Amino acid sequence: MSLWDLIRFNADGLVTAIARDAKTGRVLMAAFMNREALEKTLATKTAHYYSRSRKKLWLKGESSGHVQQVLHLYIDCDGDAVLMDVEQEGAACHAGYFSCFYREITSLDEEPVIAEERIFNPEQVYKNS
Amino acid sequence: MSLWDLIRFNADGLVTAIARDAKTGRVLMAAFMNREALEKTLATKTAHYYSRSRKKLWLKGESSGHVQQVLHLYIDCDGDAVLMDVEQEGAACHAGYFSCFYREITSLDEEPVIAEERIFNPEQVYKNS
Repeated sequence: MSLWDLIRFNADGLVTAIARDAKTGRVLMAAFMNREALEKTLATKTAHYYSRSRKKLWLKGESSGHVQQVLHLYIDCDGDAVLMDVEQEGAACHAGYFSCFYREITSLDEEPVIAEERIFNPEQVYKNS
Repeated sequence: MSLWDLIRFNADGLVTAIARDAKTGRVLMAAFMNREALEKTLATKTAHYYSRSRKKLWLKGESSGHVQQVLHLYIDCDGDAVLMDVEQEGAACHAGYFSCFYREITSLDEEPVIAEERIFNPEQVYKNS
């Protein structure tokens, strides 16, 4: 029974893909993979996703250098999500935070609370790139 | 700026929802929430999801008792995923594992490896229920 027997892509050919920092256990990001992204991720041990906005394969960190080395990849019980333990280069979030989940929601109507320190200021890092 | 200004539901009115065990940092499951599931989760501090197969609101653990108490809820940078730190009652996975991500994929063509011990045998637990 291979991966392709277990995986259940949705109508758009995608599964949920979650990256977790292997050292701290922090959840870094959630995105999607198509079949090609899964193949590339397993073959290169570097996280690839499918960008729904750009409609193409997306090597995480291809422009920022913030790549993710994949140590382990798990599939969930119903086959519609994968989880990776990764070594994150730099920061996962383009907004300059280690994790994309840097804002805590405490109630429906209140402002979100910034729950972690920013590693870099994207306006300064990207302005000359 | 409230949650509703930040959240970006997809065409089906859903966002990715991830539950993480607050004690161990283990990622337990990935599913989806609609607006009602998010409202119920924040109001009750108990994880609610939207079941795509049953097309209805789903209180996690409503039949098994394996509920998730929500300690923190985070939203990601682009507003299409939420992450919860939870206290998991029993096991997250209906197959009897603490996490739904209990199978590791090491290559495209090999059998998955069971990466954690099963907590209960669902055939024994559910046969009389």
